Amino acid sequence: MKYAIIVAEFNKEITDGLLKGTLKAFKEAHVKQSQLKIVHVPGTWEIPFAAHMLGRTKKYAAIVTLGAVIKGETTHDFWINHAVFPALQEIVEEYMIPVTLGIITCNSEEQAIARSRNNKENRGYVAAKAAIAMSHLVL
Amino acid sequence: MKYAIIVAEFNKEITDGLLKGTLKAFKEAHVKQSQLKIVHVPGTWEIPFAAHMLGRTKKYAAIVTLGAVIKGETTHDFWINHAVFPALQEIVEEYMIPVTLGIITCNSEEQAIARSRNNKENRGYVAAKAAIAMSHLVL
Amino acid sequence: MKYAIIVAEFNKEITDGLLKGTLKAFKEAHVKQSQLKIVHVPGTWEIPFAAHMLGRTKKYAAIVTLGAVIKGETTHDFWINHAVFPALQEIVEEYMIPVTLGIITCNSEEQAIARSRNNKENRGYVAAKAAIAMSHLVL
Amino acid sequence: MKYAIIVAEFNKEITDGLLKGTLKAFKEAHVKQSQLKIVHVPGTWEIPFAAHMLGRTKKYAAIVTLGAVIKGETTHDFWINHAVFPALQEIVEEYMIPVTLGIITCNSEEQAIARSRNNKENRGYVAAKAAIAMSHLVL
Amino acid sequence: MKYAIIVAEFNKEITDGLLKGTLKAFKEAHVKQSQLKIVHVPGTWEIPFAAHMLGRTKKYAAIVTLGAVIKGETTHDFWINHAVFPALQEIVEEYMIPVTLGIITCNSEEQAIARSRNNKENRGYVAAKAAIAMSHLVL
Repeated sequence: MKYAIIVAEFNKEITDGLLKGTLKAFKEAHVKQSQLKIVHVPGTWEIPFAAHMLGRTKKYAAIVTLGAVIKGETTHDFWINHAVFPALQEIVEEYMIPVTLGIITCNSEEQAIARSRNNKENRGYVAAKAAIAMSHLVL
Repeated sequence: MKYAIIVAEFNKEITDGLLKGTLKAFKEAHVKQSQLKIVHVPGTWEIPFAAHMLGRTKKYAAIVTLGAVIKGETTHDFWINHAVFPALQEIVEEYMIPVTLGIITCNSEEQAIARSRNNKENRGYVAAKAAIAMSHLVL
Repeated sequence: MKYAIIVAEFNKEITDGLLKGTLKAFKEAHVKQSQLKIVHVPGTWEIPFAAHMLGRTKKYAAIVTLGAVIKGETTHDFWINHAVFPALQEIVEEYMIPVTLGIITCNSEEQAIARSRNNKENRGYVAAKAAIAMSHLVL
Repeated sequence: MKYAIIVAEFNKEITDGLLKGTLKAFKEAHVKQSQLKIVHVPGTWEIPFAAHMLGRTKKYAAIVTLGAVIKGETTHDFWINHAVFPALQEIVEEYMIPVTLGIITCNSEEQAIARSRNNKENRGYVAAKAAIAMSHLVL
Repeated sequence: MKYAIIVAEFNKEITDGLLKGTLKAFKEAHVKQSQLKIVHVPGTWEIPFAAHMLGRTKKYAAIVTLGAVIKGETTHDFWINHAVFPALQEIVEEYMIPVTLGIITCNSEEQAIARSRNNKENRGYVAAKAAIAMSHLVL
């Protein structure tokens, strides 16, 4: 069973923390490095394209998405979220693959730091745990 | 006639209450445990994936969705709702199956507790009643 | 030429008024009871499922949707509207059928009452008139 | 080369002004009346249905949409815009036809009047100019 | 490898700056003028149509979109963004092509000027860099 992780480079100091959380959760679940595919994209906006490319390979049991969208002076962050979150659910639908959410949408840098620290509230950690659970879902 | 119930584990103390309400409504309608399929997912974000998997089996007369999205410090809750609610309507469209709504979107823990208590305002109870009604819809 | 009317039971005192307005408009246009199909669903959330079922029969010239979504303490009403209104436009697209709007989205009970009274501002009346006009559209 | 114009009747005093602006722009571009198809619908909500019907004929180089959605006491206007604007982009996608925007979304009657006067800021005028430009787009 | 750039003419003084930033980024990456296709459209609303036309040719490695939506007196800007941003993600999905974001959504002219200057924060520059990165993505 292989998993894909898509990491946005934008706000790299935050998304590095999210990636560490993700890798920690996979390690705890005895998922090996060789079972993980990590893809880097410039920003959260570009995550859906990578998810489409990965989803259609049918090689992955789930996709973890990692990004940090922090509220700025303009509404740029709002409109990115507005389009990206539904696009991720469309990927779920199109490829029948679980896509879990390590994209944090914060009002401040502080909030982003708090959600990317080395603990169990790290959103990358939570998203990886969700991906593992979803890939084992028995229906 | 079988029904599927998807329960998000996040805010488990609340969603447990919603599930109890759902089971109570099915019991009142003389639907047996053996006619119910209960699926647990990590959070509300993961409900659409499970709904797709259940919908495409064509085995269920309706799907009840249970989750508790409570407003936090960030806009995380907003963007989950933004993508998940339309995704549920897409499942309705794609599989022609009624999907009813026991996902509560609250501004506080108190509001969530009030909507998951053992009474007829319990949103899981209401959603199960809607699922039963919709599965008997004559057109 | 047949018309379908979907009425949400939730806030029944209001939607009963909307239905009366709808029937009045059809009567004024000399559309007979036998040309009308009335379908009751639990709430506005369930309107799209019924609309899909009716739309795909290809038997109706238009669908009138009647519901009353009133702002409450939580954002429940917001997210229902968020998903239901676009879902109705998808039904227009999928079955090439006019779907008109007698779903009122109000900030208070008073506003809902004002829009469901026995007059020409009754939103059910307006929606039925729109359905009749659209079913006679010459392109 | 033929163009279609869809005009919402609601707030007719405003949309009449928008239509005049549209016709003026087409006249300035030496597009004849015989090249124009004008379709009247009850309100902005009904514009997408007409656009689908026109789009699928493949007879028009572009569609101009004219409507006036003015903020009222309820959120009715908000939800109409919420569903109609994306529906117009879906028409673009489905029929590969430019659909331009003469639907004004105003906070007051005054704003609507200001955007439907006999000048170059008239939104119908602007939308027609955009339709002409798009129909001549060389790629 | 060829790239397409779609530029909205509306707020031309701003989008000219965005285009300069885009061209600078391509030059720095040794992409030649002959590898670039520049398409001008009236406004941001018209960008998705052009993107569809370009996407379906399958000739481009990525599409850069440039526009300036500045908050005005009405909600016109809001509804354009509401429909256009998701439409761009649909183009990503439909043609499996990266579409990057040089559309700025600003609360004031000042914010728009600040994001279209001759520096590395120029959003056209950033969007072109993202397009180049995405076109070289190895999965």
